[in-house]
Amino acid sequence: MSGVQRVLVANRGEIAVRIIRACHVAGLEAVAVYSDADENSRCVHMADHAVHIGRSVAQKSYLDPDALLKAARTAEVDAVHPGYGFLSESGAFARAVEDAGFVFVGPRPSVLEQMGDKAAARAAATAAGVPVVPGTEPIDDPEDIRRLADEIGFPLLLKAAAGGGGRGIRPVSSVDELLDALPAAQAEARSAFGDPAIYLERAIQHARHVEVQVLADGHGNVVHLFERDCSVQRRRQKLIEEAPAPGLSEETRQAITAAAVRLAEHVDYRGAGTVEFLVDDAGEFYFIEMNARVQVEHPITEVVTGVDVVAEQLRIAGGERLARDQESITRRGVAVELRINAEDPERDFAPTPGEITELVLPGGPGVRVDTGITQGDRISPFYDSLIAKLICWGEDREQAYARARQALAEFHVEGVSSTAGLHRTLITDPELTAGPVHTKWLEERLG
Amino acid sequence: MSGVQRVLVANRGEIAVRIIRACHVAGLEAVAVYSDADENSRCVHMADHAVHIGRSVAQKSYLDPDALLKAARTAEVDAVHPGYGFLSESGAFARAVEDAGFVFVGPRPSVLEQMGDKAAARAAATAAGVPVVPGTEPIDDPEDIRRLADEIGFPLLLKAAAGGGGRGIRPVSSVDELLDALPAAQAEARSAFGDPAIYLERAIQHARHVEVQVLADGHGNVVHLFERDCSVQRRRQKLIEEAPAPGLSEETRQAITAAAVRLAEHVDYRGAGTVEFLVDDAGEFYFIEMNARVQVEHPITEVVTGVDVVAEQLRIAGGERLARDQESITRRGVAVELRINAEDPERDFAPTPGEITELVLPGGPGVRVDTGITQGDRISPFYDSLIAKLICWGEDREQAYARARQALAEFHVEGVSSTAGLHRTLITDPELTAGPVHTKWLEERLG
Repeated sequence: MSGVQRVLVANRGEIAVRIIRACHVAGLEAVAVYSDADENSRCVHMADHAVHIGRSVAQKSYLDPDALLKAARTAEVDAVHPGYGFLSESGAFARAVEDAGFVFVGPRPSVLEQMGDKAAARAAATAAGVPVVPGTEPIDDPEDIRRLADEIGFPLLLKAAAGGGGRGIRPVSSVDELLDALPAAQAEARSAFGDPAIYLERAIQHARHVEVQVLADGHGNVVHLFERDCSVQRRRQKLIEEAPAPGLSEETRQAITAAAVRLAEHVDYRGAGTVEFLVDDAGEFYFIEMNARVQVEHPITEVVTGVDVVAEQLRIAGGERLARDQESITRRGVAVELRINAEDPERDFAPTPGEITELVLPGGPGVRVDTGITQGDRISPFYDSLIAKLICWGEDREQAYARARQALAEFHVEGVSSTAGLHRTLITDPELTAGPVHTKWLEERLG
Repeated sequence: MSGVQRVLVANRGEIAVRIIRACHVAGLEAVAVYSDADENSRCVHMADHAVHIGRSVAQKSYLDPDALLKAARTAEVDAVHPGYGFLSESGAFARAVEDAGFVFVGPRPSVLEQMGDKAAARAAATAAGVPVVPGTEPIDDPEDIRRLADEIGFPLLLKAAAGGGGRGIRPVSSVDELLDALPAAQAEARSAFGDPAIYLERAIQHARHVEVQVLADGHGNVVHLFERDCSVQRRRQKLIEEAPAPGLSEETRQAITAAAVRLAEHVDYRGAGTVEFLVDDAGEFYFIEMNARVQVEHPITEVVTGVDVVAEQLRIAGGERLARDQESITRRGVAVELRINAEDPERDFAPTPGEITELVLPGGPGVRVDTGITQGDRISPFYDSLIAKLICWGEDREQAYARARQALAEFHVEGVSSTAGLHRTLITDPELTAGPVHTKWLEERLG
């Protein structure tokens, strides 16, 4: 690993543990960072060295670029791995890291910025020949709206141009409904986002969330590691993910993975990334966005393909070329990931921070556990409430789900409420096990 | 699973946990048994039902056929899974189970008896065209001995016919040495085993222990799941196992797996079994024995092939045919198993029973943990001292060993001494990582 010998893990929790493991397995040193709240966390104990970076509130630690860069200098690392969340997709942070003379384990800063800008990402996809959800530019003339709505077809979504995160969206099913809703939508957009502009987008009915993992070495080599289905979500938070995507035809699989590779090639991508799509009942797919970092659900791809995504990130950061070509990447069986959070589904998924007084993790055949905690640790109110990811592999879907049920039966936590009970219910749901389900399935089911 | 719905797990510890998991994943109920010492053990909590079978001393519980049969009747099971050790290879127990109207999850009783009798097993191997270690019948005439020794070639072993378990064996390297040693060997055999008969066997120099996992459905279908190398042993106790066997040529692999299948076919085997061989430097292999049960090290085969050996045992016990043919069984990557025992290598591996006051198990990519305990449990002085099996998979040997080192770095136990420190030393030994090593390597290394 040419230039990289010592890596700052600019994150916390399970992904910090994951990155430290990958560093050690690759023969690299790993330096953890920690806030006040994380002083005794598992990743701090696992790292070769640990640097305190600030207060518990993330803005004063994990979201503070200066604190992280200072830690990188203090610990004399060569590279910075941002993990997911926090500053992982900040072009400005990536640029600051590179300007300070460190390797950023991720894409070039300009690509992070491009993929972080919805319109720019959509334009890149279109330029790469990747289908996007049919939609318009911001418009306000009723005649234009009427004409373009007919072109796109109903039902469609009336969206605030300045909106985001699922806010400022109204579904409409006819021209009359659309024209009725228009004034209110514009007024609302102005008051909520400071900009009255709206645009139209086709409403993809019963869409599934399917995403493709790609790896690019920055030397012109791009491969995909097949796809994941992450349709079981609530307010865009994924609860269960699966690889490969159930019910996807081989034709669609080939087309969607090829599209993801085209986009990565088009933007001259570097590192690990995920291209997210909606897939409709007919197998048509539409680009949503590209996550230019490692994702929470990367383990199911690792388990199915045998490829260590984080190890590949480190190799690429070290300037190496991809060790494998597309033909050598194969799939075996099915993997399901259950994200167990310290949240109370009975109280609208309110986080339940506290001390984990007892923790029994499952094991045995086909079961991988990724967690950042050990018994006696605290789930902090300052950060996400993940307790553990249970990744369950089987020769086929039936065995993978049966092992997931067994893993959940074995999983036991005391001291905090968790989503394990909900997961137990979901994983036996005939609609899910028959699969696939669409992205609104869980919310409809929860009522 | 036709006739089998409810299984008595006639064992304890990690293998009981393993079998309960397999039952649940297959949709079967699992009934645990427990001695006084095991009342609060993990398998008791995991099972659907648990039956007390007697006192802590194994002869009064796990080795008591009547207590187990009584439990089977009480719990109204259909089948009995014996695990490994205890009564798992007792033809008499298997027969008693079948006579009582239960399915025995294993071979037919007569095959257990055949494989349990060294001479009968060797005769079966020879009849099946499987090479055995060249040797003689019991002999006492010095002229016969001189002639046969020349035929076999030196060095060879002078063995007590009634010996076993590695006792009553003298290596000799010339005819003179042999004839000198003969009277003492005969006298010793008489005093130790009550029978002065001795026989000669070729000493396989620098032999490796290579074993082949087979599955047979009792309907004439036999497949192998490739091989494992278990040469890292001390007094016949395996400490580290690996699949596939390092340094084995494809030619030898094909020949040795075919030989194992031939033996299983010849004896009309049923269930999961392991055919053990010695392999010399030239790639010649010699049958040692067949273990007619699931083995401690079966997980490395599962991880490499994706086949669940215990699930297959249950399927076969239910009368089903093998779901796969030989061609559909493939290998991926390399797996290493580390058996961590509560033993003190500094005190001649004396068991160190006691309460596990803290237990941190490794996780993450490629790591599977099989254990029968949780933090707070006791390692009992009455049974084996296994704490956990760490099974580490990698795309290649280098990654598998690197992950094994990381898993050992994460593993932490308080309350008892363990072999983890020794494993840490061994797993970085250049001779082992370059591999393969021979069966005396560890003992020579320990001095």
